[in-house]
Amino acid sequence: MHLKDVKAPADLKDLSYEELGALAGEIRDELVSTVAQRGGHLASNLGVVELTMALHRVFDLPEDQIVFDVGHQSYVHKLLTGRYALFHTLRSFGGLSGFPKRNESEYDVFETGHSSTAISAALGLARARDYMGRKNAVIALVGDGALTGGMCYEALNDAGNAHTRLIVILNDNEMSIAPNVGALSRHLTDIRASKGWTSTKKKVKSGLFNIPVIGEPIYKMMDWLKDTVKSAFVDEDGFFTALGFHYYGPIDGHDLKSMEHTLRLAKEFDGPAVIHVLTRKGHGYDKAEEKPEMFHGTPPFYVETGGLRKASKLPSFGKVMARELVDMAREDKRIVTITAAMPGGTGLNVFQKEFPDRMLDVGIAEEHAVTMAAGMAAGGMKPYFAVYATFFQRSFDQMIHDVCMQKLPVTFLLDRAGLVGEDGATHHGVYDLASTLPVPNLTVLAPRDLNELRLMMRWTQHHDAPCVIRYGRKSIDLGEKYPCKDFVPGKWEVMEQGADCALLAVGSMVVEALETRAQLAQLGIDAAVINCSSVKPMDEDMLRSLADKPIVTMEEHVLTGGFGSAVSAFCVGEEIPGPVLSFGIQDTFVQHGRRDQLMKYLGLEPEQMAKRICHVLESKRGIKHE
Amino acid sequence: MHLKDVKAPADLKDLSYEELGALAGEIRDELVSTVAQRGGHLASNLGVVELTMALHRVFDLPEDQIVFDVGHQSYVHKLLTGRYALFHTLRSFGGLSGFPKRNESEYDVFETGHSSTAISAALGLARARDYMGRKNAVIALVGDGALTGGMCYEALNDAGNAHTRLIVILNDNEMSIAPNVGALSRHLTDIRASKGWTSTKKKVKSGLFNIPVIGEPIYKMMDWLKDTVKSAFVDEDGFFTALGFHYYGPIDGHDLKSMEHTLRLAKEFDGPAVIHVLTRKGHGYDKAEEKPEMFHGTPPFYVETGGLRKASKLPSFGKVMARELVDMAREDKRIVTITAAMPGGTGLNVFQKEFPDRMLDVGIAEEHAVTMAAGMAAGGMKPYFAVYATFFQRSFDQMIHDVCMQKLPVTFLLDRAGLVGEDGATHHGVYDLASTLPVPNLTVLAPRDLNELRLMMRWTQHHDAPCVIRYGRKSIDLGEKYPCKDFVPGKWEVMEQGADCALLAVGSMVVEALETRAQLAQLGIDAAVINCSSVKPMDEDMLRSLADKPIVTMEEHVLTGGFGSAVSAFCVGEEIPGPVLSFGIQDTFVQHGRRDQLMKYLGLEPEQMAKRICHVLESKRGIKHE
Repeated sequence: MHLKDVKAPADLKDLSYEELGALAGEIRDELVSTVAQRGGHLASNLGVVELTMALHRVFDLPEDQIVFDVGHQSYVHKLLTGRYALFHTLRSFGGLSGFPKRNESEYDVFETGHSSTAISAALGLARARDYMGRKNAVIALVGDGALTGGMCYEALNDAGNAHTRLIVILNDNEMSIAPNVGALSRHLTDIRASKGWTSTKKKVKSGLFNIPVIGEPIYKMMDWLKDTVKSAFVDEDGFFTALGFHYYGPIDGHDLKSMEHTLRLAKEFDGPAVIHVLTRKGHGYDKAEEKPEMFHGTPPFYVETGGLRKASKLPSFGKVMARELVDMAREDKRIVTITAAMPGGTGLNVFQKEFPDRMLDVGIAEEHAVTMAAGMAAGGMKPYFAVYATFFQRSFDQMIHDVCMQKLPVTFLLDRAGLVGEDGATHHGVYDLASTLPVPNLTVLAPRDLNELRLMMRWTQHHDAPCVIRYGRKSIDLGEKYPCKDFVPGKWEVMEQGADCALLAVGSMVVEALETRAQLAQLGIDAAVINCSSVKPMDEDMLRSLADKPIVTMEEHVLTGGFGSAVSAFCVGEEIPGPVLSFGIQDTFVQHGRRDQLMKYLGLEPEQMAKRICHVLESKRGIKHE
Repeated sequence: MHLKDVKAPADLKDLSYEELGALAGEIRDELVSTVAQRGGHLASNLGVVELTMALHRVFDLPEDQIVFDVGHQSYVHKLLTGRYALFHTLRSFGGLSGFPKRNESEYDVFETGHSSTAISAALGLARARDYMGRKNAVIALVGDGALTGGMCYEALNDAGNAHTRLIVILNDNEMSIAPNVGALSRHLTDIRASKGWTSTKKKVKSGLFNIPVIGEPIYKMMDWLKDTVKSAFVDEDGFFTALGFHYYGPIDGHDLKSMEHTLRLAKEFDGPAVIHVLTRKGHGYDKAEEKPEMFHGTPPFYVETGGLRKASKLPSFGKVMARELVDMAREDKRIVTITAAMPGGTGLNVFQKEFPDRMLDVGIAEEHAVTMAAGMAAGGMKPYFAVYATFFQRSFDQMIHDVCMQKLPVTFLLDRAGLVGEDGATHHGVYDLASTLPVPNLTVLAPRDLNELRLMMRWTQHHDAPCVIRYGRKSIDLGEKYPCKDFVPGKWEVMEQGADCALLAVGSMVVEALETRAQLAQLGIDAAVINCSSVKPMDEDMLRSLADKPIVTMEEHVLTGGFGSAVSAFCVGEEIPGPVLSFGIQDTFVQHGRRDQLMKYLGLEPEQMAKRICHVLESKRGIKHE
C-alpha cells in the first residue's frame, strides 16, 4: 500500500511490518519534498514517523483522541488521516495548516501551537469522557522540550491525582528547539544512560539491518528481555512516579513493533501513564539529522544540499539586536540575556557566541524567564529577555506583577510582532500592544527599521525602568534616504511632510505608510508620514499640532487596545479630531499564509489603504479629487 | 527582650531558646490582636513564627536575601525588621502593606503577592550575586500550595541545572489556601508518613512540654538520631532530587533548634538545596488552627470567639454565582466548575457541597485550569472557571490560544474585579478588560448587581462560545427600584433618563453612577444612567442614539484599553462626539487601603465625579447653572 492510498488510519492496521517500513520511507520522502517547497517543521516530523504510525495502529481515531503538544509535529498524522492529497498546500494561504485544526479534520481533536498545553487539554478530554460515560483513550504527545514548561507540570500534578485513564507520550529527542536545558533533561539523560539497552540495541539493530532473516529472531529475544526488565524501569523514575504516573520506558521510537507493544500495555492501564519514547529529530534525512535546530522550522530549501532557496539580504531584527547587545555588553558588565529555548530564533545565539556565560536559556518557560529576569534586575543586573511576541503572552502576569510593579529595569525584546505568515493564527504577535500599553512604568517602543532598533537598544542601556521593544519577522532598512539620527522616547519623527493628511504609523507600518504616501500622491493627496516608534509615551505635543489635518493610524496589531485606539482615546480627551481611519487587524483570528497575502486579505496593502483614505477624505472631509 | 525592643534581626542572635520561646509568644499575640483589628492573613503567619525567627538567626539580612512566596506570610518578618511600631497600621491606607514592599524596608528584597514566583526571583538574585562576585545567601520561602504552580517547577528545573547556591524552603503545612491538591501533595504526605519520626517526635515533644528539665536531653538525643538518618531522607525524595536539588527533611517547623541546625547545613551547601519544613497553619491560636482556611485571609474578628466583627448582609457575587450554577447543574449534566485552589474565595464551595464530583480543584495552576477547561469543552462539557481577576492574568495566553481561538464554550467568572482594597496593588483586578476586549470570539460582561448576574449566568448556559463575567468584591443589590428583567448581550439598559448628559457605567460603577446622578441633580444637571453590562459587544445603536448629548464613561479598571477607551475608539470611527470624560484608574499602580479610601484617592467618589462632570459641562459645553 502506498501513501496516496491511505485514506484513513484504519488502512494501516493490516499491513505487515515490511509494508509499514516501506510506507515510513514514503512518508519521509513526502515530508522532505513538501517542506523543501513550502518551508515548515521538518526535523520533529521526521522524528515521529514510526511513533505516529504506531499510535494509529494501536488506537482507533477519531474515537480515541490524540492531542499534539505544540502541534508542529502533526504532519505525519495529517498524511495518515486523509490529507495526503492536500499536503502540497501545507502552510499556504487557504491550504492545510502546519498545526492541528479542528475545521480541517475530525481527527484533529484539539488545536495547539504554543508549547506545553497538551497534557492539560488531554486531561480535560479524559475528564469529559469520564463524565459522559465514554470509554475512549486519550493521548497527549509531548516533546521533552515542552516538558520544561510549567503547564506540563501543573497538568501532571493534577492528572496524577485524578485517577483517570490518560496516556502521556514523552517524545524524548534530547532537545526541544535548541538543545534541551534544565535539570529534568539531565534526569532523563541519566535514565537513558542507566539503561544501556537502548544504545546497545541501536547498535545491534543497525548491524542487523543487512541480515533480516537472522535479525528477526534476535530482535524478538531482545523484546522479551526488555519486557522482563521493564518493571525495573517503572519504579526507577522518581519524577513521574512522584507525580502519580505509571512509567513505561524508555523505548526506541523508531522501532514500530516495540512501541506498539508498549502502547497496548498502556492502553489497558487504568490510570495515568507516561511512555518515554526515544526518537531522533530529523531521522532519515541526513541534513536534518545533522542540524536539527536549523531544520526545526525552516524556510524552503534544496533537498540535495540542505541549503536555503532564498537567502535574505538583510540581517533580521533579532540579529541586529543581538549584535548591538554584544557591543553594549563589552563595556557594561550588568548586561545579561535570557531566552526561553530559542537562542537561534531570537538571534541571541549571536550574543551567546561572544558571552556564553551571559546568555541564559531557561527552557520553554516564559513565566519563569520574566520573574527570574526581575530577580536579576533586583540584584543589580540589566537583563534583556528576547522572545516571540506570541509567546510573551505567557508572561502577562509576571510582566505586570514582578517587573513593572517594582519598576525593575528589564527589557523585553518582542520578535515576530505582527503577522508571522505561514505559522498562522497561533503565532501572529498581535496582542502585545493591548497587553503592555495599560501597564504603568512600562515604555513601549517599535522601531521603524534596523537602524532605529540600534538607537533604541543604546537608549535602553541607561533607562532604569521596564521597556518593551516590538519588531517583526520582516527585516526593514530604510537606508540613506531616511537616516536615523536620534531616538527620544515620547518624540515622533516626521519622515515626510504633507498638507492633506498625516499617516501615523507604528513599527513595520512605517515603510507601508511611505508606500501609501506614494500611492496617495498619484491620487492627488499629499500625506505626511509620522514614525510613531514611541508608542508609549505618545508624542502628545505632535498629536495636538496635527489637530488641523485628518490623521490616519496604521499598526500591525489588533485595533482594539492598540495604537489607533490609544490615539482615539487621547484625541477624545483633548477634544481634538480623532483618526479618520485606523488601519490594523479587525476582531478576528488571522489564518496562515504569506505575509503579503495576509496583508492584502486584511486590506493593509499600501494600494488598498491609499484607496480607502482617498475615499474617506473625499466623502467625509469634502476634499475632491478627479 | 520584648518584641517592641527588637530593632533589627541581629537582636535575636544572642537570645537563649527560652527567651526566644517567650518572644514567639509575643509575636503570636501581636499577630492575633492586629489581624483581629485590621483583617489580613493570619493562619499562615502563625505557622511561620519559629521558621522566620530561625531564618533571621542563621542568616544575616539584608546582606542575605529572602524572597517570600505570595508574601502574605511576611508579617513575622516585618515585626522582626524594625516595623513593630507601625504594625498596627497593617493593610490600612498609607500604612504597612500586607505584602513585602521594597519601599518599606531594605529587608524586603523582592515584592510578591501572586503565588509561585519566589524561586524564580530568588534564582535571579542568586545569579546576579554570582555575576557580581558577592557571596550572600539567597532563600526562597515557598508554601506547599504554591508548589502546585507551574512557575515553581520551571524555576526548580532551571535552578537544579544552574550550579548556584540557592536555598528553597518548602513550608509544608499540608494545605495552600484550601486543603492541598495534586499528586505532589500526596507524594509529600508519603514522605511524611514514611518517616514516622516526625509524628512520633510531635507526640513526645508535647508530652515533654510539662517536664522541661528531663525533656531537654531526650530532645537532644532525638536531634542526633535525626541527623544520623537524614542522609537517608536526602536520597529518598525522587521529585526534588530528579530536579537536581539536595533535599533536607522533613523537619519540625516549630522546633527552632532543629531548624537552625538544618539551615546552617544548607547555608554551607554549594548548590541548590530544598529544606522541607513541616508547620501547622494557625499554630498557637486555636480558632485559626481549627479553621485555617477561614483564617487564611480574614476580615476583622473577635479574638475570643473567632467570629467576624461585621457580618455582611448581602451574599457575595461568588455565592450568588455558585447558587445559580447549582440550579443550572441540576438539569444540565454538562456543567462542571473549576477552581485554582480557591473554592472558598470564589464561592464554588457552595457548588462543591452539592456536586462534589463536578467541582475540580486543580491547585494554584491558573494556566492549566484554563486549558484543561478548554479540553473539557472540546469533549462536550460546559466548564465554568471561577477565579480572581488578578490571578486570571496568569491565563492570558491560554484564554486566547486554547479557548477563544477554538471558540470553546468556557465561561470565566472573574471575581474581585476592580479595587480589592486592603490587599493592594498586587491584587486589584484592573487589567481584565484590557486583556479580554481585544480577543475575538469572546463576550465580556459585567453585571450591575447580583440580580443581573443571575440572568447572565442563565444566559451563558446556552451560549456556545467563550464568555467573561467580571464582578467585584463589594456585593450590590439594586433591589426593587431597579428590577432586572432581562439580559441580552449587545444591549444596554437605560436605568434613568436624563436630558443633560448620559453616564455610561460598567458593573460596580452603575451604583456609583446612580449616586452621581443624584449629586448632579443637586447641581441642576439631569443625567441619564446607562448600564453597560455588555462591555463586548457594545450597544452600538444606543451609542449612536446618544450622540446628541455629552457622554461620560465610568469603570473600575485602568483607562487605557478599558471600556472608556473602547467607547472613544468607536465614537471616533463613527464620527460622533466621544466621551467628555472617562472615569477610571489612571496609569499608576494603586496601593492598599479601604475601597472607599482608594476610590476617593482616585477621584471616583460620586461627589467628586459629579463636580468634575459639572465643571466639564460648564466649561466645555457652555451649559450654565445657577
